[in-house]
Amino acid sequence: MLLQLSPVQGAATLAELDAKDAAGLLGTFTRDQIISRLQLLSPNQVADLVLALPPERREEVLKALPPDISASVTALLHHPADSAGGIMDNRFIAVTADLSVEACIAKLRASSRQRTDELLYVYVTDDFQKLVGVVSLRELVFAASDRRIGEIMNRDVWSLGLTDDQEEVSRRIQHHGLLGLPVVDEQQRLVGVVKLRDAIRVAENEATEDMQLMVGLSGEERLWTPWKNSIARRLPWLGVNLITALGASAVVGVFENTLARWTALVVFLPLISAVAGNTGNQALTVIIRALALGEVAPGDALRVMRKELVIGLANGCLLGLAIGLLAFGWKGSVLLGAVVGAAMLLNQIVGVLSGVAVPFGLRRLGVDPALASSIFVTTITDIIGFFLFLGLATIAIWKFAL
Amino acid sequence: MLLQLSPVQGAATLAELDAKDAAGLLGTFTRDQIISRLQLLSPNQVADLVLALPPERREEVLKALPPDISASVTALLHHPADSAGGIMDNRFIAVTADLSVEACIAKLRASSRQRTDELLYVYVTDDFQKLVGVVSLRELVFAASDRRIGEIMNRDVWSLGLTDDQEEVSRRIQHHGLLGLPVVDEQQRLVGVVKLRDAIRVAENEATEDMQLMVGLSGEERLWTPWKNSIARRLPWLGVNLITALGASAVVGVFENTLARWTALVVFLPLISAVAGNTGNQALTVIIRALALGEVAPGDALRVMRKELVIGLANGCLLGLAIGLLAFGWKGSVLLGAVVGAAMLLNQIVGVLSGVAVPFGLRRLGVDPALASSIFVTTITDIIGFFLFLGLATIAIWKFAL
Repeated sequence: MLLQLSPVQGAATLAELDAKDAAGLLGTFTRDQIISRLQLLSPNQVADLVLALPPERREEVLKALPPDISASVTALLHHPADSAGGIMDNRFIAVTADLSVEACIAKLRASSRQRTDELLYVYVTDDFQKLVGVVSLRELVFAASDRRIGEIMNRDVWSLGLTDDQEEVSRRIQHHGLLGLPVVDEQQRLVGVVKLRDAIRVAENEATEDMQLMVGLSGEERLWTPWKNSIARRLPWLGVNLITALGASAVVGVFENTLARWTALVVFLPLISAVAGNTGNQALTVIIRALALGEVAPGDALRVMRKELVIGLANGCLLGLAIGLLAFGWKGSVLLGAVVGAAMLLNQIVGVLSGVAVPFGLRRLGVDPALASSIFVTTITDIIGFFLFLGLATIAIWKFAL
Repeated sequence: MLLQLSPVQGAATLAELDAKDAAGLLGTFTRDQIISRLQLLSPNQVADLVLALPPERREEVLKALPPDISASVTALLHHPADSAGGIMDNRFIAVTADLSVEACIAKLRASSRQRTDELLYVYVTDDFQKLVGVVSLRELVFAASDRRIGEIMNRDVWSLGLTDDQEEVSRRIQHHGLLGLPVVDEQQRLVGVVKLRDAIRVAENEATEDMQLMVGLSGEERLWTPWKNSIARRLPWLGVNLITALGASAVVGVFENTLARWTALVVFLPLISAVAGNTGNQALTVIIRALALGEVAPGDALRVMRKELVIGLANGCLLGLAIGLLAFGWKGSVLLGAVVGAAMLLNQIVGVLSGVAVPFGLRRLGVDPALASSIFVTTITDIIGFFLFLGLATIAIWKFAL
C-alpha cells in the first residue's frame, strides 16, 4: 500500500506510524525506495526508523543516505529514542560572544544554503562549546550591526539535559512558550536543539498513548496498523480483563443462593456495574489528563480524592434515588428499592474513589498511570459493587426473613 | 484559591480552565484584580473570558484594559470562539510589495517596542489590504537590503478563512509545519494570524475533550474545576447511562426463566459484559484518535470495519476457547462450555463492530464522534451480548431438554 503513495505522502505516513510498524513496512522495500522516503524526514525520525530495522539492514541504509543526514542520524542513535537526545535536532548554529552582529549575520547567511528548515535562535557558546547565551533571530535583526553578540545575548538560557524524558521536555518547551530549547551534555556543552514542532509530536503521541493505554492497548496503534500487530497489542490486555472479570463472576457465584431466592436482583446487576464503571472512568479520565499535562503533583492525591468524594456522594444520592424508585415501582417492594438504591449510591462512591486510586497507585508503582487503568477501574467497581449489592440483599433476606 | 496565586500563576491557571469556570472564579474579583491577571493573557484568551463573564461586567472590564488590548479583544468578540477568527491574534505586521528590504526592517524595528511576543513572518498586502505574499523573518535578514519585498516574497501563501473551524485550523498549521498562518476575510483581506502556539492549545484541548466526551463529560473538565460544575457535567450522562443500562437489565429480565432454570449462567454475565465492553473501547479509541488527527475519511468506514472484524474474530476465538474450557472445567458441562464460549466469540465481534459503528454513526449525525461514545459502545455490547448469551442458553435448554 505504501508503495502506491508518492514519496512525500509515504514519508508522512511513515512518520505517523509507530517506528516498529513503519520498519516492518520498509522491510519489503528496496534500498532506493527506502532512501527516497527517508530523505524527507528529520534526522530524529530517521533515527527512530533505522533503530527499528533489522540490524543487518541498518548499515546499508545509513550508508546510502546523504553524508550529512547519515552523520546526524548516527549521532542520534546513541541516545534513547524517548529522551531529549533522541528527539533533538543536532543541526544548529552556535557562535561565540565576541562575534559582531554583522559577522554573525554573515555567518548565518553562509550556512543558510544547506538548511531547509526555519532558523529561530542563535546559541552562544564559549571556547569549550559550553552554552552561555541565546539570541533570537529577531533580536539579531534589530541590533546595531557593530555590537557584540555578548552584549545583546540573553544569559538566562533554559536548557535540557540529554537524558531528560521526552514528555517532560515537551511540557517545558510549551510551558516557556518558546520555539525550541537547547540540549546540553553533562559538561554543559551544546549538542542539539529540541524544536517546538517535535515537542508537539511528542505531546500528540502522548495523548494517543494515554487514551489507548487506558483501555489496554500496548504501544501505539494507528488506524492502519496491520491487523496482526493490532491483535498482538490488544489480546494480552483482554486476557488480563478476562482474569480480572473472573473476580466479579466469583462474587456473583458466592451469592448464588441469594440470587436464587430473590431472582429480581439479577436484573439490576448490569445496571450497578455499568453506571459505576462509567463514573469511575469519568474521574479517571480527568486525572490521567491532568497528570499528562503536568497539572497535578503526587501530593495532590488527597485533595483530589476529597473533591471526587463530594461528586460521588451527590451523584450517588440522585442516581440511587432514581433507580430505587424505579425498582420500587416495578415490583412494589420497598425493600428491593432500598437495596438497589443504596447499592447504587455506595458503588458511585466506589467508582470515584477507584478512579482516583488507580492512576495515583500506578504512578506510585512506577508505571504509566494510564496503563490498563480503565480495565482496573471497571473491575474494581464490578467486584466491590456486586459484593455490596448482593451483600445488602443477603442481609435484607436474613433480617426480614424473605 | 486563585487570589492566593501570583498574578502570573493566576493568569496561567485562568488560561487552562474552561472559559466558563474561569469567568466564574473571576466573578468574585474586583476590577483591578481581574485586570492585573487579564493583561498577561493573549487577546484571544481574554476574549474567551470576557465572553463568559456576565454581560453587565463585560463593558467594565473592557474599559479598564489598556486601549490596544481592549481594541483587539473587542474585534475578536465578533467571531465565534471556536473559529479561526476567535483564536487568531489580530496584531500583525503587514507591508506593501514596493517597500525595500531596508525600509521593511526599519518599520519592524519601529513597531517592535510594543510587541512582547516573537515575530515570525511579515505579510505582504496590496492597496486594498488583500494578502498577496509572505516573507519569513529569516528571508528578510538574508536578502540584500536594496531589494523590494515583492521580489523576495513567497506568493504561494496559505491562508485561513475567518469562519474555519479551529480544529481544522490547528491541523493545517501543524501539517504545513509552519509557525503560523494568516487569516483573511471574505474579500481576501488580511485580518489576523493564528500562531502555532494557539494551534497546539487547540489540539491539546481537543485531545482532552475527546477523552472526556467518550465517557460522558460535557465540556472540558480540569482537575481543579469546582465540584458543583463537575457534578453538572457528569450527572446528565450518568443519567443517560442509567437509562441505556436499563436496556441491558430488560434483556436479563426477559430471560428470567432461563436464568432460574440454569443458575450457573448468572456467574458469566459480568464476564461477557466486561471483556466485550473493553474490546469495543479499544476499537473505539483507535478510531476516535484517527478522526481527531485527520487520518481517516468517512469513506474509510468499510475498510476499518473489515480490519476490526478480523481482529474481533481472532481475539473472539481465543478468548471464547479459554472461557469455554474454564466453564466446562468448573461444572463439567460441555453444553455450558459451548454456550459461554460461543457467546464470548460472538460478543467480541459485536464489540469491534460497535466500536466502529458508534463513532462513524455519530459523525454521520453531525455530532462529535467522541460524544458519550464509550457509554453507547458498552451499552450495545451489554444488550446484544446478554441477548446472544441468554438466547443461546435458552435454545440449548430447549434442544437438550435440560
